[in-house]
Amino acid sequence: MAGNSFGNLFKITTWGESHGKALGVVIDGCPAGLSLSEKDIQLELNRRKPGQSRLTTQRKEDDKIEILSGVFKNKTTGTPISMIVRNVDAISKSYDDFKDIYRPGHADLSYDEKYGIRDYRGGGRSSNRETVARVAAGAIAKKLLNKLGIKTYGYVAQVGNIKIDNVNLKYIDKNPLRCPDKKKVKEMSELIDQVRREGDSIGGIIEVVSIGIPAGLGSPVFNKIDARLASAIMSIGGVRGFEIGMGFAISEKKGSEVNDVMKGKKKGKVVFNSNNAGGILGGITNGQDLVVRFALKPTSSISKKQKSINKKGTVKNLRVTGRHDPCLCPRAVPIAEAMVNLVLIDTFFENKLSKIENL
Amino acid sequence: MAGNSFGNLFKITTWGESHGKALGVVIDGCPAGLSLSEKDIQLELNRRKPGQSRLTTQRKEDDKIEILSGVFKNKTTGTPISMIVRNVDAISKSYDDFKDIYRPGHADLSYDEKYGIRDYRGGGRSSNRETVARVAAGAIAKKLLNKLGIKTYGYVAQVGNIKIDNVNLKYIDKNPLRCPDKKKVKEMSELIDQVRREGDSIGGIIEVVSIGIPAGLGSPVFNKIDARLASAIMSIGGVRGFEIGMGFAISEKKGSEVNDVMKGKKKGKVVFNSNNAGGILGGITNGQDLVVRFALKPTSSISKKQKSINKKGTVKNLRVTGRHDPCLCPRAVPIAEAMVNLVLIDTFFENKLSKIENL
Amino acid sequence: MAGNSFGNLFKITTWGESHGKALGVVIDGCPAGLSLSEKDIQLELNRRKPGQSRLTTQRKEDDKIEILSGVFKNKTTGTPISMIVRNVDAISKSYDDFKDIYRPGHADLSYDEKYGIRDYRGGGRSSNRETVARVAAGAIAKKLLNKLGIKTYGYVAQVGNIKIDNVNLKYIDKNPLRCPDKKKVKEMSELIDQVRREGDSIGGIIEVVSIGIPAGLGSPVFNKIDARLASAIMSIGGVRGFEIGMGFAISEKKGSEVNDVMKGKKKGKVVFNSNNAGGILGGITNGQDLVVRFALKPTSSISKKQKSINKKGTVKNLRVTGRHDPCLCPRAVPIAEAMVNLVLIDTFFENKLSKIENL
Amino acid sequence: MAGNSFGNLFKITTWGESHGKALGVVIDGCPAGLSLSEKDIQLELNRRKPGQSRLTTQRKEDDKIEILSGVFKNKTTGTPISMIVRNVDAISKSYDDFKDIYRPGHADLSYDEKYGIRDYRGGGRSSNRETVARVAAGAIAKKLLNKLGIKTYGYVAQVGNIKIDNVNLKYIDKNPLRCPDKKKVKEMSELIDQVRREGDSIGGIIEVVSIGIPAGLGSPVFNKIDARLASAIMSIGGVRGFEIGMGFAISEKKGSEVNDVMKGKKKGKVVFNSNNAGGILGGITNGQDLVVRFALKPTSSISKKQKSINKKGTVKNLRVTGRHDPCLCPRAVPIAEAMVNLVLIDTFFENKLSKIENL
Repeated sequence: MAGNSFGNLFKITTWGESHGKALGVVIDGCPAGLSLSEKDIQLELNRRKPGQSRLTTQRKEDDKIEILSGVFKNKTTGTPISMIVRNVDAISKSYDDFKDIYRPGHADLSYDEKYGIRDYRGGGRSSNRETVARVAAGAIAKKLLNKLGIKTYGYVAQVGNIKIDNVNLKYIDKNPLRCPDKKKVKEMSELIDQVRREGDSIGGIIEVVSIGIPAGLGSPVFNKIDARLASAIMSIGGVRGFEIGMGFAISEKKGSEVNDVMKGKKKGKVVFNSNNAGGILGGITNGQDLVVRFALKPTSSISKKQKSINKKGTVKNLRVTGRHDPCLCPRAVPIAEAMVNLVLIDTFFENKLSKIENL
Repeated sequence: MAGNSFGNLFKITTWGESHGKALGVVIDGCPAGLSLSEKDIQLELNRRKPGQSRLTTQRKEDDKIEILSGVFKNKTTGTPISMIVRNVDAISKSYDDFKDIYRPGHADLSYDEKYGIRDYRGGGRSSNRETVARVAAGAIAKKLLNKLGIKTYGYVAQVGNIKIDNVNLKYIDKNPLRCPDKKKVKEMSELIDQVRREGDSIGGIIEVVSIGIPAGLGSPVFNKIDARLASAIMSIGGVRGFEIGMGFAISEKKGSEVNDVMKGKKKGKVVFNSNNAGGILGGITNGQDLVVRFALKPTSSISKKQKSINKKGTVKNLRVTGRHDPCLCPRAVPIAEAMVNLVLIDTFFENKLSKIENL
Repeated sequence: MAGNSFGNLFKITTWGESHGKALGVVIDGCPAGLSLSEKDIQLELNRRKPGQSRLTTQRKEDDKIEILSGVFKNKTTGTPISMIVRNVDAISKSYDDFKDIYRPGHADLSYDEKYGIRDYRGGGRSSNRETVARVAAGAIAKKLLNKLGIKTYGYVAQVGNIKIDNVNLKYIDKNPLRCPDKKKVKEMSELIDQVRREGDSIGGIIEVVSIGIPAGLGSPVFNKIDARLASAIMSIGGVRGFEIGMGFAISEKKGSEVNDVMKGKKKGKVVFNSNNAGGILGGITNGQDLVVRFALKPTSSISKKQKSINKKGTVKNLRVTGRHDPCLCPRAVPIAEAMVNLVLIDTFFENKLSKIENL
Repeated sequence: MAGNSFGNLFKITTWGESHGKALGVVIDGCPAGLSLSEKDIQLELNRRKPGQSRLTTQRKEDDKIEILSGVFKNKTTGTPISMIVRNVDAISKSYDDFKDIYRPGHADLSYDEKYGIRDYRGGGRSSNRETVARVAAGAIAKKLLNKLGIKTYGYVAQVGNIKIDNVNLKYIDKNPLRCPDKKKVKEMSELIDQVRREGDSIGGIIEVVSIGIPAGLGSPVFNKIDARLASAIMSIGGVRGFEIGMGFAISEKKGSEVNDVMKGKKKGKVVFNSNNAGGILGGITNGQDLVVRFALKPTSSISKKQKSINKKGTVKNLRVTGRHDPCLCPRAVPIAEAMVNLVLIDTFFENKLSKIENL
């Protein structure tokens, strides 16, 4: 209810604040017998961690993972897997200045209204740092999915008004921006660098593609896989829009233009002429690649001078110092992949119970 | 798990197929003491029902609601409210022709893959007719919210490439299109009429605004109110994109351009200079109006000739006869309002437990 | 939350009041492809229905089941199965006399305190009549379990102070008392008849045995199968105690006396010297028969004169007329079987996800 | 699903193994604003911890609690509270001898059957050591309940065949046995000491009483408070039976003998002549004290020689060395109190939403 759990069958519960002692996650529902070590998790955390390049925040966190339970002799036991990351480089002092001021674009006001109290150090629970726990859990989902032949790739599709022209999946992890179009990396990086120098920030768009998806994942009505993906992605801080397949552009089209036509079967799998639906029909996968896209707002923390108010409503000037990403995009990639993978593994598990012949 | 329930505290479970005997919903969690009669529900169902104008399907269903439990002497008792609508005008024969063919854009293939069996009459459970149950449940959520001073308005913001220029909330229910801009109704209607005559269909965009929202609704991390709204809206058949506030357009902006600046307090409520965030900060409402927008694909059922395949993979020609909406937009308005209201009431209930002084 | 759902994977939601229009259940999570007709359900409802003999209430309800969704051409489709039973012989007038009086042993007071309102006709939602929905759902669980080789038998083990000496499973459904010991039927029946004539009622004990259970069902910690069975059984009206295996008697024993010793394996299954644990070790089945037992209080509705109070606290005399079971035991048997089967199918489904090699 | 979470609104998720690195719990749903420090938790853990007297296991664990999140400046913030206890005195070597042998009365066999793998060190997740996390969570529930005027007391009511004659709540924590009857402490202690010397163990009965309970807690049908209490208590390792109020004894009674008669109202609260129902009517509290009782089996780990089998089914002799409680009763008291309190706080939260006038 209180919102810190995700998933039904592969269920994760996350906890921790940006400047608290630690952050962590408990996974309940990982099947027994999966080979698992801290290295598997660390690999993904390293892709998300701060301080990777000048395009990201300069906070230095090694995000060293410790597995506390659920693994015995490097195999999962079916019991809950608890993982923890200690915070080491929190500089809470930077937040003393605006502990009573509501930073524009931040959750300061809304948390105060909901709870009447708030851990103002680094945004507390509302900080993007919270996603370290999601990525740790997602690493296990990814390992399970890889065994099932499913791979998920996220990448930066747009920064400000600079858009990619083509996608080279292999190039994504070869540049700190996680852009799949070699030709756009320089331009995008310069834009981010420029807004950073201005004490400003810039928005962007991420695309996530999952390959090797079997037909039949997802459920009717409220647990449609697109509904679950939307919820998963929109739960990431700063996301303002979500699309599947052709997305918003479809609203201007006719049915005869966008219906994906099936043209036959190949090795038991239906072949389509197009993938406007992004791999989903009626909330259930059709065997094509899953394609989702989402919009990230520019980081709310900017060092440019802004006006805001304090709790009493008095107007105050502020500069949000501290260390922040000038663009949320590069580090959002592994977070989004984690969320998509968490949805996929859950729908996969669900399907073990869809037909009587599976029992 | 199986996906036919929605909400945590005001929890609904829906059931029924397009051409089955009936459709219905059970609501578990409605507080005792609310005045409620079938009339309250019927009013909303009438806004959603088919056959309202030539812009919608010609299937004739009165969608007469019957309340079977949970109400005693016109008051809710706190026990589950079961409601049922009998199907009366299902013409299943029209579906015999393509019971083995996978209709393009439909869930035929994906249901077959998931379940190995499917009720092909009118799409069975995957039909938009399923939403009758959501609207019935939403009518009760609406009644509760109205008592709390919260009102939700949906309207058609775009049909094909025709967009509204301004919003007159009072005009919405005065035209069968549910368009809030009097000047665009004719043009939009003509476009829908034209695609209908062509045996085709057209997409569009719906906007939903909620007014009177208190600050503090929603929860951190996975139950952010935007994540829940996204899931609620994306669970409606045919939705391909979801936005909150400025939506995708924010990806091209700088932080200094889009941070909503707070400029003071008025009657205990924070006053903002803008509402780019759509009323949400960190997944929790900030007291401004809630603004969501979503894209609907053109109806997949078109009577134009299309190619597709049957279960075996053999190519077949088909025309999807039967009675269909040429544009999903007008009838999607009450459905979207229902889903938004179901989310709102749940977050409202949640908040009774957020602070110790509320206990 | 509000408590009308049961089960996680094979999830049921029940609704309806004793003297309302109807009662029903929605099952979400039944796999597709199970042969199912109304006859399958009716068979079990007939075992539970009132008016079967002079040992039970004389209310005449045929409890005719109607399946409204989720079944197509006599096969389940994987979508929610909605079932309904209309009330036909409710005589609400008998309840007018004590609509303001709190009947001793009944939920009248506690419902009023919780909800501030209550459907007093026949006890409303608190009536045992609510269990018609459980038995309907249980019939489907039973069908699934039978396919898996699992059978559940309930029987009356004690009425007042008369206890059975031995158990003949085949004899259970051959006597209206559902007593498995032919020699005790007469004595037990006479006792029930006698208390009925006195305008009184009598308690008893039911035992439920499940046979053919595989080892490994259930989960650690909070979802131990014994915890789930306890909750399932204690949720039946009038139950005051629950035991597994040796039950309360074990509290006087030493470990060396009651540890069930394993003496080998036969056809891959462990053979034990005894079954004091009732088939469960650490909350998970060990392959032996599951044995649970529970105590039923004497029916609270008695026509003998009693004293009680009204809402204001004024003392009143009352005789609870209406038609009531003088002993809850005989009709509790199919209800308890249903609850045990609902737990079993859920744990069985759960286990499809316990090991990685099952994926 | 996987069973390591408990509660709906005040939801806890526990993790950890007997000989793993640590054990812990995440609480999601504690309202903001509660004063809380590690001392509050430690107090309860000290009541549960091993090595308190010669009547309990000699394993030496300080069970030092660390709060990792959810508390800021000694107040809860409404975000998840994560707590951890490191294991320090695990001697895993003692378990090497029977890592392939199924210990009688233990979960070794059933875990192996479910998961195909098991952490054999100290029983892993199936160990009673897991309850350290429950008691930590229960300490917060207790703090909330105390603010609401509700107090829960557990005590040993029987050891072997020695029963208490009267209850002095103040005496409970004054003796290591947690027996409320001063006259029986010596006799009970001697019995435990004797079985310990014999390398054996002994069963017993615990009673838990909650005082100050308002009428109206609990829900109809499946979430009856007695059903939830039964599940909570039966989820504790070694429990074999559960009763409410008069319990099993009621099965021999007539309705006229056991119906609790209401005789008036005092300060708005109904006054009864008796409390045979243990404070519950129709699954909802009636304002009287809540009385539950449960039976504990004798500890399965005994150092007396026993026969058992290994994984292959070969018969083996074994002596379960290691350090074990000769009687589970004394340390089960704080565990049972924690479970009862966790149920109570959840039902209390639930009731904030039962009536429309509470919104």
